[in-house]
Amino acid sequence: MTPNDLYNVLSALVPQYITMFLAFASVKYWKIFSPEQCFGINRFVAHFACPFLFFDVISRFQVKNINLPFLAADSISKVLVLIILLNWVSFFKSGSLEWLITLFSLTTLPNTLIVGIPLLTSMYGNEQEGLMIQVVVMQCIIWFVFLLFLYEFQAARNSIMMNISEKSAQLQNNIGEEDVHISIAEENIEGLSELQDSISCVYEKSEQSRDIKESEGKETEKVERGRFMMIKLIMKIVCFKLVRNPNAYASLLGLLWVLISSRLKIKKPLIMDNSVKILSNTGQGLAVFSLGLFMALQPRIISCGNRLAVYGMLMRFVAGPATMLLSSVLVGLRKTTLNVAVVQAALPQAALTFVYAKEYDLHSELLSTVVIFGMIASFPVTILYSILLGL
Amino acid sequence: MTPNDLYNVLSALVPQYITMFLAFASVKYWKIFSPEQCFGINRFVAHFACPFLFFDVISRFQVKNINLPFLAADSISKVLVLIILLNWVSFFKSGSLEWLITLFSLTTLPNTLIVGIPLLTSMYGNEQEGLMIQVVVMQCIIWFVFLLFLYEFQAARNSIMMNISEKSAQLQNNIGEEDVHISIAEENIEGLSELQDSISCVYEKSEQSRDIKESEGKETEKVERGRFMMIKLIMKIVCFKLVRNPNAYASLLGLLWVLISSRLKIKKPLIMDNSVKILSNTGQGLAVFSLGLFMALQPRIISCGNRLAVYGMLMRFVAGPATMLLSSVLVGLRKTTLNVAVVQAALPQAALTFVYAKEYDLHSELLSTVVIFGMIASFPVTILYSILLGL
Repeated sequence: MTPNDLYNVLSALVPQYITMFLAFASVKYWKIFSPEQCFGINRFVAHFACPFLFFDVISRFQVKNINLPFLAADSISKVLVLIILLNWVSFFKSGSLEWLITLFSLTTLPNTLIVGIPLLTSMYGNEQEGLMIQVVVMQCIIWFVFLLFLYEFQAARNSIMMNISEKSAQLQNNIGEEDVHISIAEENIEGLSELQDSISCVYEKSEQSRDIKESEGKETEKVERGRFMMIKLIMKIVCFKLVRNPNAYASLLGLLWVLISSRLKIKKPLIMDNSVKILSNTGQGLAVFSLGLFMALQPRIISCGNRLAVYGMLMRFVAGPATMLLSSVLVGLRKTTLNVAVVQAALPQAALTFVYAKEYDLHSELLSTVVIFGMIASFPVTILYSILLGL
Repeated sequence: MTPNDLYNVLSALVPQYITMFLAFASVKYWKIFSPEQCFGINRFVAHFACPFLFFDVISRFQVKNINLPFLAADSISKVLVLIILLNWVSFFKSGSLEWLITLFSLTTLPNTLIVGIPLLTSMYGNEQEGLMIQVVVMQCIIWFVFLLFLYEFQAARNSIMMNISEKSAQLQNNIGEEDVHISIAEENIEGLSELQDSISCVYEKSEQSRDIKESEGKETEKVERGRFMMIKLIMKIVCFKLVRNPNAYASLLGLLWVLISSRLKIKKPLIMDNSVKILSNTGQGLAVFSLGLFMALQPRIISCGNRLAVYGMLMRFVAGPATMLLSSVLVGLRKTTLNVAVVQAALPQAALTFVYAKEYDLHSELLSTVVIFGMIASFPVTILYSILLGL
């Protein structure tokens, strides 16, 4: 690592630190923003700045620049983490679906758009932006959707579990009561009634042959149908949430534009480009600024306890890059592409993962700590990884 | 005007209209932001986005590109307007200091930074940005300060007038009461006691020889001193407000950087440039967005009555460019420089003038109307002027 490399890293990270500090100080010391006003800025980031930035960045990508080995390495590393975690959940008593989700999020979802693109292009040159855009697209269109699916699955499972134990208690009191309805938190989704019937079957199964009117085969079929309906419902909820998530369709629109423009060989018209740029230009600065506001609004920087914080940081900055290194070597990446793959896996935690954790109330304090500390630690971590990779 | 020119104007203005519409709709129809959250965004614009944008734009300027005739034309046109208005106030009964301030603001202060720079560079090429930056610097460092001075002068005068009439009434009741103190709204300014004595003299003078203890000469001296002190106090208040106005010192810092860097022949270091850019990039989009929020929060778009609105628009879009054209021709500007001078004078009203008008509660409804309508009208007006100038 030459002094010039160091300067490049600094010139990408120092502006982000300054912006975060300004945001932090403007709440903590200068009292410029009330919490409600901070939410206003965050809403602007969530509804305008980030979606426009997603669209802008993704639509800049060119199909001919797709780097399949790089994409493969990225996907394999995430699948690898998932397999390890699934085994842990299946074979160890300490494992749980809740922790699987959180650990998956911590290990595989770095902040590629806001921190990653400026940092990695400053380190490895603008021609590597294409690699980063591929990671951003995959993350946004596949992995965040998958994470959302996991959260929804967990929520639905808990809701059913709770219903079953409630009903079970109820049944023990009033045997003979007939209308067993399991209600699911989401009420706006169509087709709930059919589903409720099916879930009742799952429930009846768990009540184990208390009432053997029907044949074994028919019952199994009903259970299968119930499972299928549950997955269908969860997918509906996920789609429902995605439709209301501006980042998701901004990414899809961006991808659509890439496909159309490469097929018709057209460039973005100036008016369209300017219209996107005027808001997407606000994304970088405001996303970092809102991270600073977020830090200032948390009661404590380490809100999850020191031991958990250390584990979280290890997952983010050691386990994540390590599996990425492993899969990159497996796929045969080399030189700059290998470096980009590993360094992007060692970026700070994506802020969106905290938003989900908060929404589903699942280890949100741990995620908050890793997001905040991740930003602070990203400078030494990045330097360290680029030195290690240079050896 | 070729179709290409028209397209360039459109590609600068359409993004601004879209951004404003998104802001407007997000409050009026989609209910994304509460009024308090809008204030949060406005505060971000006022404290971070705009100051950084001011610094960034001004610090890009190069001393060797100063165009003195252009600057002279700009200053002469503003002085011309001021002389006309002063004559009107002195010789016509309809004239008043209040209307002088508002008309001066309407005629001479267009939105050069947010609307002007993108629009004029798209029309006349990036090499004309230097001209626009000069107007921005002059506006920010001289003309907005002057406007602030006028507002403060008016406020101080009214406050003294009110005190005099109060004291006058009081004196008629209790002749013989001795301690006459005139209090001024601003209480945080030092040296008030000395000033109060002096103003008492002005007041005593206005009470006209009710009590002739002192010689004429001494009294005149005291009055002169009082006037001087009043001006000094107003200047103090103006400075006090400027010190708290981030745009003002961002502009001064920018100018300082221009002077230092041109003398030492240094370029902005990458870290510094990136640190400024990350926030200044948010300026353009967010300033326009907050104009849209402002529109949505006003109870009516034309809040000052139709007749007044028409007069206001005439001042902005006819009187302003006309005096600019006159002084440009006087100075001998030609071709592109002449066009830039006139078209920039026909830009929509600067949003900051509304902020001042609101703060001093002086025709703020008229200013609001001209700011909002000005944005909407800027497309046809700009097209019209560039056609007229092309003849």
